[in-house]
Amino acid sequence: MTLTLAELAAFITSQGIPCTVDGDASVPIRAVATLEEAGEGQVSFLSNPKYEGQLATTRAAAVFVKPEVAAQQKMTLVRTPDPYAAVTAAIVRLHGYRRHPQWGLSDRAAIAKTAQVGAKANIGPGVYIAENVILGDNATVYPGVYIAQGCRIGRDVTLYPNVVIYDGCVLGDRVTIHAGSVIGEDGLGYAPVGEKWVKIPQIGSVIIGDDVEIGANCTIDRATLGNTAIGSGTKFSNLVAIGHGTRIGEDCMFVAQVGVAGSVQVGRHVTMAGQAGIVGHITIGDHATVGAKAGVTNSVEPGVTVLGQPAVPIKDCRRQIAIVQRLPEIKNEIRRLRQDIDRLREQIQNDVEPPP
Amino acid sequence: MTLTLAELAAFITSQGIPCTVDGDASVPIRAVATLEEAGEGQVSFLSNPKYEGQLATTRAAAVFVKPEVAAQQKMTLVRTPDPYAAVTAAIVRLHGYRRHPQWGLSDRAAIAKTAQVGAKANIGPGVYIAENVILGDNATVYPGVYIAQGCRIGRDVTLYPNVVIYDGCVLGDRVTIHAGSVIGEDGLGYAPVGEKWVKIPQIGSVIIGDDVEIGANCTIDRATLGNTAIGSGTKFSNLVAIGHGTRIGEDCMFVAQVGVAGSVQVGRHVTMAGQAGIVGHITIGDHATVGAKAGVTNSVEPGVTVLGQPAVPIKDCRRQIAIVQRLPEIKNEIRRLRQDIDRLREQIQNDVEPPP
Amino acid sequence: MTLTLAELAAFITSQGIPCTVDGDASVPIRAVATLEEAGEGQVSFLSNPKYEGQLATTRAAAVFVKPEVAAQQKMTLVRTPDPYAAVTAAIVRLHGYRRHPQWGLSDRAAIAKTAQVGAKANIGPGVYIAENVILGDNATVYPGVYIAQGCRIGRDVTLYPNVVIYDGCVLGDRVTIHAGSVIGEDGLGYAPVGEKWVKIPQIGSVIIGDDVEIGANCTIDRATLGNTAIGSGTKFSNLVAIGHGTRIGEDCMFVAQVGVAGSVQVGRHVTMAGQAGIVGHITIGDHATVGAKAGVTNSVEPGVTVLGQPAVPIKDCRRQIAIVQRLPEIKNEIRRLRQDIDRLREQIQNDVEPPP
Repeated sequence: MTLTLAELAAFITSQGIPCTVDGDASVPIRAVATLEEAGEGQVSFLSNPKYEGQLATTRAAAVFVKPEVAAQQKMTLVRTPDPYAAVTAAIVRLHGYRRHPQWGLSDRAAIAKTAQVGAKANIGPGVYIAENVILGDNATVYPGVYIAQGCRIGRDVTLYPNVVIYDGCVLGDRVTIHAGSVIGEDGLGYAPVGEKWVKIPQIGSVIIGDDVEIGANCTIDRATLGNTAIGSGTKFSNLVAIGHGTRIGEDCMFVAQVGVAGSVQVGRHVTMAGQAGIVGHITIGDHATVGAKAGVTNSVEPGVTVLGQPAVPIKDCRRQIAIVQRLPEIKNEIRRLRQDIDRLREQIQNDVEPPP
Repeated sequence: MTLTLAELAAFITSQGIPCTVDGDASVPIRAVATLEEAGEGQVSFLSNPKYEGQLATTRAAAVFVKPEVAAQQKMTLVRTPDPYAAVTAAIVRLHGYRRHPQWGLSDRAAIAKTAQVGAKANIGPGVYIAENVILGDNATVYPGVYIAQGCRIGRDVTLYPNVVIYDGCVLGDRVTIHAGSVIGEDGLGYAPVGEKWVKIPQIGSVIIGDDVEIGANCTIDRATLGNTAIGSGTKFSNLVAIGHGTRIGEDCMFVAQVGVAGSVQVGRHVTMAGQAGIVGHITIGDHATVGAKAGVTNSVEPGVTVLGQPAVPIKDCRRQIAIVQRLPEIKNEIRRLRQDIDRLREQIQNDVEPPP
Repeated sequence: MTLTLAELAAFITSQGIPCTVDGDASVPIRAVATLEEAGEGQVSFLSNPKYEGQLATTRAAAVFVKPEVAAQQKMTLVRTPDPYAAVTAAIVRLHGYRRHPQWGLSDRAAIAKTAQVGAKANIGPGVYIAENVILGDNATVYPGVYIAQGCRIGRDVTLYPNVVIYDGCVLGDRVTIHAGSVIGEDGLGYAPVGEKWVKIPQIGSVIIGDDVEIGANCTIDRATLGNTAIGSGTKFSNLVAIGHGTRIGEDCMFVAQVGVAGSVQVGRHVTMAGQAGIVGHITIGDHATVGAKAGVTNSVEPGVTVLGQPAVPIKDCRRQIAIVQRLPEIKNEIRRLRQDIDRLREQIQNDVEPPP
């Protein structure tokens, strides 16, 4: 798709993100690129003032910038209060979302007779859909996906290659799961008998809400009883592990390699940064933020940001870290205090003791 | 399956877990559920006194409780010293373990002529079994599984979808591997030549004992020479990484995202909590416990629980953490000590100096 | 393959690793094994003096050792300045690299008409190669691999089972990707609109250089714009996560469960130990080393080794850890300082106060 810069700016403005072109608005635009890589026919953006120097060297046809950015020689600027939102709209307009291969119902897919597959299904070769699965309209199911018996899956879902969904899981509408993720495997449910572990049948399930997107190679345990739940609108990056019986609220954002143990209650719009972990049986309040690599061992109040291992409110963590980094110095001060006291004591004793 | 509560209690008692019904033992029971979700025909359990308040609101037909729990109005209790074990037995009796689809030998599976597949094999479409594989009786192999040449696999194994087993690995009887796990990939074995890395053929293998269960999307490196070994009865959760040449004892329990580097010796019945890691070439004694997110850099004696980074015995770690969290206070105390000393010194000098 | 020890030593010497046999050089050698497991016809090696005791008990036919190791009774030694390099050469000579099954172009693979597959391709059943893929000569593609539209892949690549490569990714020559890894999935790219997350099309790609080897179940995000890049010669272990737009230099070595957030610049020959993590938008200099479990929150200068959370130069980290471990002792010293000061103060006041 190619638009003039004027047309593109008008479109973005129509999306609620006002744009004004400072320069030649007739230039044709066909793509979005980074400042570094953009060339003829490509727009770019400057969101972080740290990179403002690149405005002088970029070969982009135009650049989305904040209103206060100074005019550049020979460079067309598009001024907007939110360059990031503007470029997002430009990407959607010029490039759109991924277009999937069209398989219809591949004759190399294995679909059980009792499975109900909705209209306009796009099912690749090597897909396996087991007994009594219900799959909504407009599903795109890539090769190598396995959907076990009794799963109920909404409409407009996209399951990328080699996703595995165990029996009886429920997925909402517009769910996207990236390649290799596994939904509904058994959790670590064993009863100890002496030193042996006796497996407890994991008869619960997983319920995933609408508009959830899950990254690649994640694992979401089914519950022992009841359900593990992922709230609508929640987004996961890759290699995220969710334990059995954990319930995660709506619109959360979990970065790569996050791990949440079992029976945790996570509120809505909670952010977990990379490699953070949460122990079992605690509660994370709405809008809480868990910093990268934090190890959360106690419940977190709504709106609080925690960091560290064990995680504490971020202000406390930062103060602790600052002091830990000054510990060598503190140790020296303690040594000096000891010397000073000894010297004082000696002095006092000299003062007090009668001269010989 | 439906039983009366009396029949269910009698069954559980027969399993060595004594139960007595306090209420209507004739009520029909067909399922186990959580206190929150249970309704007619469903039993639940109360193991943690923290949730005792839910006894007043649950709609369960009966609840397994400890003997000391007070009688409830209108609620049938089943008293037993171990409600968790009782409910495990009830789940097994009423629900049983997962029932797999029955494929026989799918004609969409690719099985090499030299492979030996045991009796009653249940091999799904899209499975690949390479040359000279030996697969024992009663195997269930889900779609998308790849078993490379020369693997020897025991009887009654279950390999969930998209499991990959590299060449020459050995699995015992009743091994279960969840979806997407990879067994026997090459470890990070390279010889440095200048700044380049020259690959060392990884000619070792992986040996997995009987009754091992491995979660989803785990990775277990083959050894460079000899074997990586997972002892019988050991259970892994998801996204666990085991390095080349590491040997893990029997009946261990590893929680999600645990990582063990290469050439580690792990004893028997070792517990590793989530996201814990162990560096290479050390030894973890029998019955040791590694806390969540711990980073183990030195060998651990049998029976010891370690925590922290670097991991130390848990008592020491907790003491360190408690003090670190009080460091701001300690820093203030040091400042006060300095002031007090200065004041004392001044006072002494005033005392000693002759008045002007 | 079987050689005499003399022939094997001559071969290794010819590779630039001088070897001299101290003992019977006519003994036939057919394999390499560990000191513990080696027997007749097998050579082993002693690189770490810590294991020298095993020389007395090994049943190996000969052992590669450093020149200074004392002669052993009844044990043939092969003296060489670099036993590890020597044994690597011996493994390559006697065992060679993995031999793949030979499928030619399996008729159970799905290859788009517009895909260009190079000469001598070895494509297993259940492989899917989408429209406009270019795949170089001598590719080995195992069952269950999915290569999306428009990928360009060099020659002599090996893609193990169930690898998934999203659309438009570029792989160099001699790239190896182990089972279950996913290349080019969408990163966490969303624009916040109120509390909702609006997906930003991820129109960038991934570029992987020559001679890269990637472990099992890794995930490498495509860039939002431009490319995520992995430099030639870099090696990853398993379960590694790379964020969108991150660029990693040549000849790096990343151990299992490493995570690098988005928009990070990693230099060449950087080592990251297990479970280490790097936050977004920073730079790691050439030849830097990131210790196990380190959490890197600031850019790292070339050649520096960092450790801890937040990561600091290793000397500082070790000093901090040493002091933290002595904190209980330090706390006691502070208490004693307080007591001593109080005592001194009292003493001074007694001295100063007139007797009653």
